[in-house]
Amino acid sequence: MTHPTPVPSHPVLDPERRQHVSGAFSRDEVALANRNAGMPLEMLRHDVTPAGMHYLLIHFDIPFVADAGWSLDISGSVRNPQRLSLDAIKAMGQVTTRVTLECAGNGRATASPRWQSQPWEHGAVGTAEWTGTPLRGLLERAGLADDAVDVAFFGADRGFDGGVEHDYGRSLTPAIALGDDVLVAWAMNGQPLLPQHGFPLRLVVPGWYGMASVKWLDRIVALDKPFDGFQQVSTYVYKRTREEHGTPVTAMRVKSLLVPPGIPDWYTRRRLVERGTVEIFGRAWSGAGTLIRKVELGVDGAWSEATLDPPPPGRFAWRGWRARWTATPGEHELACRATDANGDVQPLEQRWDLGGFGNNMVHRVAVTVR
Amino acid sequence: MTHPTPVPSHPVLDPERRQHVSGAFSRDEVALANRNAGMPLEMLRHDVTPAGMHYLLIHFDIPFVADAGWSLDISGSVRNPQRLSLDAIKAMGQVTTRVTLECAGNGRATASPRWQSQPWEHGAVGTAEWTGTPLRGLLERAGLADDAVDVAFFGADRGFDGGVEHDYGRSLTPAIALGDDVLVAWAMNGQPLLPQHGFPLRLVVPGWYGMASVKWLDRIVALDKPFDGFQQVSTYVYKRTREEHGTPVTAMRVKSLLVPPGIPDWYTRRRLVERGTVEIFGRAWSGAGTLIRKVELGVDGAWSEATLDPPPPGRFAWRGWRARWTATPGEHELACRATDANGDVQPLEQRWDLGGFGNNMVHRVAVTVR
Repeated sequence: MTHPTPVPSHPVLDPERRQHVSGAFSRDEVALANRNAGMPLEMLRHDVTPAGMHYLLIHFDIPFVADAGWSLDISGSVRNPQRLSLDAIKAMGQVTTRVTLECAGNGRATASPRWQSQPWEHGAVGTAEWTGTPLRGLLERAGLADDAVDVAFFGADRGFDGGVEHDYGRSLTPAIALGDDVLVAWAMNGQPLLPQHGFPLRLVVPGWYGMASVKWLDRIVALDKPFDGFQQVSTYVYKRTREEHGTPVTAMRVKSLLVPPGIPDWYTRRRLVERGTVEIFGRAWSGAGTLIRKVELGVDGAWSEATLDPPPPGRFAWRGWRARWTATPGEHELACRATDANGDVQPLEQRWDLGGFGNNMVHRVAVTVR
Repeated sequence: MTHPTPVPSHPVLDPERRQHVSGAFSRDEVALANRNAGMPLEMLRHDVTPAGMHYLLIHFDIPFVADAGWSLDISGSVRNPQRLSLDAIKAMGQVTTRVTLECAGNGRATASPRWQSQPWEHGAVGTAEWTGTPLRGLLERAGLADDAVDVAFFGADRGFDGGVEHDYGRSLTPAIALGDDVLVAWAMNGQPLLPQHGFPLRLVVPGWYGMASVKWLDRIVALDKPFDGFQQVSTYVYKRTREEHGTPVTAMRVKSLLVPPGIPDWYTRRRLVERGTVEIFGRAWSGAGTLIRKVELGVDGAWSEATLDPPPPGRFAWRGWRARWTATPGEHELACRATDANGDVQPLEQRWDLGGFGNNMVHRVAVTVR
């Protein structure tokens, strides 16, 4: 699945610079890890992730935007093209939804070989209270034409990927876009959006991996054919081989993480835990509004069921879980495994994916008990 | 300069795991880069860094703290030991200061060889408006005893470094601690401290590298001999060889950074710029309250003086600068170089330091103009 745009030959844009590698990491990967912030796993304790701790994946640069004069255009296959001010959008209604978002590439650094991209460990996740207007109302005002088969969303951020220059853009089918859940959001945790989270306006697509929630949203284009933008067709596609057509990345897969217990070593992050009763705490979530049914704690390969916290508000936020562990001196491996209401369960080993997407293998934490 | 505490033999704590290396990066380094957030350089445009964009260097775990019941103890060589509630501290007076903080290890990833630690590119910097009580008032209430020669500050964060278990702790001499500038801060940019910035209370030492500004501050101990904690004597020391006694890391060195112009490639971060007039913008700062005297823009090795923005409030925040560049097609290297009021100027090449501290060589950005 290659993009039709010709690939410039200049090395700055060389799509061949990235490879599948094992072992040590390139300076480019490290520079991306400097820019893109993961959530330290101890932050799992917060029902709603504090400002600045929600993960961030910024494809290009964070635009420097003044809200004065910002407008959202809705054009293409619509009956009534719109140019809406922020105030006009806010006047169309307001809802607040608690949503867990995870980057589709979370865990990429743990794969071997891995695709060279943002080298996430486990922290590319976070939960926020998003306040905005249901997208449906905006699209109904514009009136999707009968020939509209896809709806594309574009941000104010622009750059190159794979040799292709583009504004960041993603699409949703009319069925999804006109559903109950998708928001055009202007506030996060009761505050105006921070610049890095899409100020002044962004899409929030609950239940999907984060790439769908376009930040710095400034135009929506209804299309009479499927959107073929780079971020839609040339990445964020599950593939096992380069030749494969692949499957688009959409809903988050069932997953759980635990707060590493004890205290860390600065450099290795290895954990030292006191012997005795240790309360293990974590979070679990799944995609597309699917609830969590069960979480298991694994200790040295033996699994036992954890206690689920009361359900969070709505269907789109992570759920707390806890378990007691009697820690005995020596080396141990803790792990957690969630099962959702569809019966989907986290795999013990990561299924191979060319771009490192959809990693949801069980989370393992090595600890030393003294 | 080795620490007297015996080094445990367990590999989880093995201080020999870290080395000086060149080239590719370890998984441990990448995991640290996931946790510790740099400020993307486009954020230099903001006078005050937005929440969540200020750099963070978290040595151990971020404590999960409720403010109820938090108190600050002042003990040791003092005449009147104190246990102060947050409310009591707030009642002792309130000031707000704009402060630029930089991590002493900023730029470490650019060195070769480099010490394996947090592999910062250039983004370990940020500017905030800190609100708190002058430390002097607290120390005067406790009354430093005549034999007090050092004042140690401890946080609630605990872990291992170099095989040594400790609460994060740093000290200041009485002269510095009783000066006008050091704050015990409870608010940042007009909001209560975020968990990751030290909630509910932290030290802010303007003009110094960030390691001095102890987060989650819960006790102050006046000492009758110099503090010998790990973070004071076994790291944050400038050394060229392991044998050298070294010099403590204190005030920030003069430095400047520029916002990379144009648009980036996602993976390489290389920049593409349109030909014509380009406004280059950046920031410059120095340590210990020293003002910036001059900033120069370098284009392909030729330097010309930039225009300084009006000075920021106070003596501790970065200053904006700007310059116009007529970009012609081809490959170019932009650079910036600041000079402070002491006449200190950024070096063209990095001086060697064993731990990668105090990097202030000129910032260089390669761009392609079309």
